[in-house]
Amino acid sequence: MENSAKDDLSAPTKGAHLSTRMQKTRLSITRQARELTAEHGYNGFTVEQLCEHVGISRRTFFNYFPTKLDAVFGHDADDIPEGAVERFMASRPVGITGLSPTLLADLVAFVLEQLTFDEQAIVSTHGFFSVVHREPELLQRMMQVGPEKEAEFLNLIATREGVQPDHPGVMALVHFMHFAVIKSVDRYVSDSGQRSITDVFMEYITAAQDVISHPLTRNDS
Amino acid sequence: MENSAKDDLSAPTKGAHLSTRMQKTRLSITRQARELTAEHGYNGFTVEQLCEHVGISRRTFFNYFPTKLDAVFGHDADDIPEGAVERFMASRPVGITGLSPTLLADLVAFVLEQLTFDEQAIVSTHGFFSVVHREPELLQRMMQVGPEKEAEFLNLIATREGVQPDHPGVMALVHFMHFAVIKSVDRYVSDSGQRSITDVFMEYITAAQDVISHPLTRNDS
Repeated sequence: MENSAKDDLSAPTKGAHLSTRMQKTRLSITRQARELTAEHGYNGFTVEQLCEHVGISRRTFFNYFPTKLDAVFGHDADDIPEGAVERFMASRPVGITGLSPTLLADLVAFVLEQLTFDEQAIVSTHGFFSVVHREPELLQRMMQVGPEKEAEFLNLIATREGVQPDHPGVMALVHFMHFAVIKSVDRYVSDSGQRSITDVFMEYITAAQDVISHPLTRNDS
Repeated sequence: MENSAKDDLSAPTKGAHLSTRMQKTRLSITRQARELTAEHGYNGFTVEQLCEHVGISRRTFFNYFPTKLDAVFGHDADDIPEGAVERFMASRPVGITGLSPTLLADLVAFVLEQLTFDEQAIVSTHGFFSVVHREPELLQRMMQVGPEKEAEFLNLIATREGVQPDHPGVMALVHFMHFAVIKSVDRYVSDSGQRSITDVFMEYITAAQDVISHPLTRNDS
């Protein structure tokens, strides 16, 4: 039982700057919780059993997450590599009005940075999300968290581009990126990682570019 | 209390060919059920109250739908104008290998046929779907039905195009059409129908074409 978080942290779940060790513990809790959920179902394990897997005390657990449900869904900051958001925001070309011509390229780079950040975690996360729909508690939380995260992402891009978050093109792009991530992770996992996640992701993007660029009306009609 | 369905039908919920009157009754049940759900919540009304709104007997109700949940979700055949699927399937150009160059145009025509089929129904359906996430029973059914319908649509296109249903381009296209329908219905309803659903839908499609056609990598990187 290592990692007693309370020593160096007053409000751990809110703190933006955790020590590396604490960040690792937090991430480890979420991963183990997801693996246990995938294996035994959300109600198939207790917080105590989760703590045993992680190698922490119950008290330490509650320093990181208020509930088991929070642990399974994880901490927002653990999804994104440090500085990735800032890099994305700074990469808009100067002297442009309206959407950047590099928006798609910058988003692809941003998403790939996240996808390749931790290729190992992809498999356990995938296992977890593939059982969510069977668990009413998880499903309900996901239906809340999913749109919230999509809205955050939308706001981020809208802010960078200086447009409203309900800009049809920005909305389509966010939605499409989300789709490409989910599908490429599915494919990556079912292929047992034979191809890199980057290759699989780019295949979805280019295939979509191809079909969506076709004409909207038929010449013969 | 009109419409006693049992007289002219042995297995009504399975029958592909209902009389026009019966089809109207079935559609009317679903619409009223959705309106009641939007207004009072799924558990805020009984089958008896639903029957009263439609003007049918309880017995007639069960000739159309086995449960209240089935009534709310409605009958598949009521979503699509007659012959629309057949027209879509027949519109692939001859002598083509791989994806039709008219696929996007044919899909847009197919979706618009559905969207403009019954502009009145859009508002009540929208009201219903906007409360689904608050109702565990509805949410669970939707999580099952949604992917099933998406898979059917995917199979339809894959069959027409002679490709596998997991073709990345076809998947992206189906997903994107789904997105454009949901968003344009949202916008159409919140604008109180000031613009036609066709205009709103086409705005999403063209905006998406615009952003997704941008280059995938930056020239400067």
